[in-house]
Amino acid sequence: MSERTGRRLRLAVAYDGTDFHGWQRQPGRRTVQGLLEDALSRIDGERPVTVRGAGRTDAGVHAEGQVADAWVGRTVVDASDAAIFRGLRGLLPSDLAVREVRTVHADFHAQRDAEGKTYRYAIDTSAHGDPRSARYAWHLYGALDVDAMRRAGAALAGRHDWTGYTAAHCTIEHRVRTLEPVGWHVTPGRIEATFRGDGFLTFMLRNIVGTLVEIGRGRLPERRAAEALERRDRSLAGPTAPARGLTLLEVRYPSPS
Amino acid sequence: MSERTGRRLRLAVAYDGTDFHGWQRQPGRRTVQGLLEDALSRIDGERPVTVRGAGRTDAGVHAEGQVADAWVGRTVVDASDAAIFRGLRGLLPSDLAVREVRTVHADFHAQRDAEGKTYRYAIDTSAHGDPRSARYAWHLYGALDVDAMRRAGAALAGRHDWTGYTAAHCTIEHRVRTLEPVGWHVTPGRIEATFRGDGFLTFMLRNIVGTLVEIGRGRLPERRAAEALERRDRSLAGPTAPARGLTLLEVRYPSPS
Repeated sequence: MSERTGRRLRLAVAYDGTDFHGWQRQPGRRTVQGLLEDALSRIDGERPVTVRGAGRTDAGVHAEGQVADAWVGRTVVDASDAAIFRGLRGLLPSDLAVREVRTVHADFHAQRDAEGKTYRYAIDTSAHGDPRSARYAWHLYGALDVDAMRRAGAALAGRHDWTGYTAAHCTIEHRVRTLEPVGWHVTPGRIEATFRGDGFLTFMLRNIVGTLVEIGRGRLPERRAAEALERRDRSLAGPTAPARGLTLLEVRYPSPS
Repeated sequence: MSERTGRRLRLAVAYDGTDFHGWQRQPGRRTVQGLLEDALSRIDGERPVTVRGAGRTDAGVHAEGQVADAWVGRTVVDASDAAIFRGLRGLLPSDLAVREVRTVHADFHAQRDAEGKTYRYAIDTSAHGDPRSARYAWHLYGALDVDAMRRAGAALAGRHDWTGYTAAHCTIEHRVRTLEPVGWHVTPGRIEATFRGDGFLTFMLRNIVGTLVEIGRGRLPERRAAEALERRDRSLAGPTAPARGLTLLEVRYPSPS
């Protein structure tokens, strides 16, 4: 324990983003951060608790492996991690779960310490639209040229300025990020694309997917994906893909923390 | 075509049962049969259409392979099956899909002709409760003795009078059905039990699962599953498992229809 009375918790978090207004706390809205803070505050004697997430997922985006941290004190200082885990489980709704609670070094910072993240985007290509993936995939009618999508996606790997794929309202100035080669998993009725990188800007992945889909539909030329990147011109890329297909799978840290 | 002007359609149907009041049409309620009938009626010139399902799933129960039939006439008599498929797709919500439309013999009857059905029941045994299976599985805290559940389930296979596992309000007199050996698929955090038989009574599967879970928890003796069956005594069995874990996977017919 540090001089402050309390401890730093590292939380592994999963959620179905459908019924959340995203990660970030907003007054009067159901958000992941808001519910986590309220639950932790409840088990910490109503002391205000701040939860810091590794990534602020947009409204509708899901998570299997989100990571967050929080400083808790007083009432839970002697509780075991397992007791806090059980306490949170009893307070959270079924679409939000803390998968693991671990006491870590007081300086751990879920966002700043993160080394990289992995996201998956799922597309339902069945003719009828699978009801069970309606919340978790983008359903597209008609044929997609997956080979063209793969080739266009391959041209995006590497260290780039991603201005061409960033939301207009993105205020981050430093837009250089490294994207590893896109992983594809194609089965009958379903396409999954996995994106691994050191960081992602607002809407970046959904804009990449929207562009690759337009290429797969033959509505944009294959070279357009790389062009939007090189010219840093958002107007060259395709539309933003729906949030529901996107899931934060994993956040990576340099060493066990 | 028969002497009547029209055709018999065979529909393969999938749905997320969470937001439905079950299969059967009820005034003022959102039901699968109701939405299918309304959609078919819409593409058949507002003529009333009756949809007959192979099984009347309860509220909250899902389907991947439900089968239904309907007699349609007049306006769609010259339409292709594919055109009707597309028409339905445009009219149905994302949690209800017609997977296939096929014109069959006028005498086909989805319920009467069914030879058997397969259901799956899913249990989430993860400590935290997976948010993505919250709508599709029963989340149970604590350890389950899966071997005891397997043994107790094995004692149920065969041709029996299932009064001991039937809902009190079940009015069917002939309660003899044949259940094949239960199939188990056990992975970390998840148990799936597959039930294949020639027919199932109201709540029969959910009562079987509820009983096996009580046995798995050590709250009921292993032999109780068979005892409730032999004595035809519902009070000996466990509680009814939640609807959300149950999915109708398949309906079988004697020959291609």
